[in-house]
Amino acid sequence: MKKLGIIGGLGPWATAYFYRRVVDLTPAKRDQDHIETLIYSAPQIPDRTAYLLGKDDTAEDPRPALIEVGRALRENGCQVLAIPCITAHAFHSEMEEGIGLSVLHAIRELGEVCWEKGITKVGIMATDGAKLSRIYDDVLTGYGVTCFWPDKERQHDVMDMIYKDVKSGRQISASVFSRVAISLFETGAESIVLGCTELSQAKLDLALDEKYIDIIDVLAAACVRECLR
Amino acid sequence: MKKLGIIGGLGPWATAYFYRRVVDLTPAKRDQDHIETLIYSAPQIPDRTAYLLGKDDTAEDPRPALIEVGRALRENGCQVLAIPCITAHAFHSEMEEGIGLSVLHAIRELGEVCWEKGITKVGIMATDGAKLSRIYDDVLTGYGVTCFWPDKERQHDVMDMIYKDVKSGRQISASVFSRVAISLFETGAESIVLGCTELSQAKLDLALDEKYIDIIDVLAAACVRECLR
Repeated sequence: MKKLGIIGGLGPWATAYFYRRVVDLTPAKRDQDHIETLIYSAPQIPDRTAYLLGKDDTAEDPRPALIEVGRALRENGCQVLAIPCITAHAFHSEMEEGIGLSVLHAIRELGEVCWEKGITKVGIMATDGAKLSRIYDDVLTGYGVTCFWPDKERQHDVMDMIYKDVKSGRQISASVFSRVAISLFETGAESIVLGCTELSQAKLDLALDEKYIDIIDVLAAACVRECLR
Repeated sequence: MKKLGIIGGLGPWATAYFYRRVVDLTPAKRDQDHIETLIYSAPQIPDRTAYLLGKDDTAEDPRPALIEVGRALRENGCQVLAIPCITAHAFHSEMEEGIGLSVLHAIRELGEVCWEKGITKVGIMATDGAKLSRIYDDVLTGYGVTCFWPDKERQHDVMDMIYKDVKSGRQISASVFSRVAISLFETGAESIVLGCTELSQAKLDLALDEKYIDIIDVLAAACVRECLR
């Protein structure tokens, strides 16, 4: 069994939720069957979206801090690394290079899931940073999947749900969530990806059916698979 | 702000839940306001109750592994340590000595809470190991609090809820939980302590009122207080 390292704190709630999903998805009958895991939750890592958007010249580069956290995990014996912050995947290759160890890639894992399910059109609910950096679009294209993003107003709704609701400890509004989802299905999406760790909370507050794919679950399942391989 | 270290994995679900409660109880408006935290989840640490009960001569001593995990956290810069496994508090002083750093004590924190609320009689739902080691009784006596434990059959119910339900990923039965709680109130308890991390799940599955004190929340609040002090 390999030791798992979680680059966490982006945000802290998502980190706790992600680890819980790793535990839930591990086939275990007693504590001792679970995966040894080191979670470094470093919420002081500069905001990824602020840096990617580059609107504000003072926005700090999060890459050195991300690499430092990953290196600490590697030095403490972690063999499988994951980062439950999708926006940070924009720096995936630089992180792997800086850390000196491969890092699971949530969106490539999502591509595999879409491929297996025969899904070719997905609506994405994620941060402006994830949208602008094209991390979803560029990776999923390689799996024959086209991404649909909300229009400007609905994307604003998504950002509010992430920053004004979940990151501030408030519940997501079911009506705001629904109007984003409906707009994506109307443009032709077959499935909707909860594509930012904070939106996994939507799954808890709202009763969502199998048309929704939670990227946190996809990444957690990949961690379990790699550690138990 | 001090760096928090969590000695985790006992069990893994409780660790995820505990970190989530630390996050929930931190006064924060954005990721960067949260506490830097290192969580070392080591589920391979031998079972604490099995060792404390000493029924089985082959039961391994969990102390060396607990100390090793604590030391790793200290060496990685953690200044405040906590262990969200109440049974392991039976080894609290040996852990502090071995690690070379003080460890928050969940039951002393509970004693403070009872003292503040004027509670003098509490019913305890916890493992056989916690009962046998008298960690609750011995510590709470110092705060003028008397502990009431379930009788043999109801204590068996408690162990089943912890080991056969929560640790195996199943929901707690409301009727089994209720018959334990009723028996404790009948013997004179003013409040009931959810005194094993796994039982915090009862709070999620059942709707419990303010007569129940969750020791996980008491310990999480202490972590936040110490790190932000």
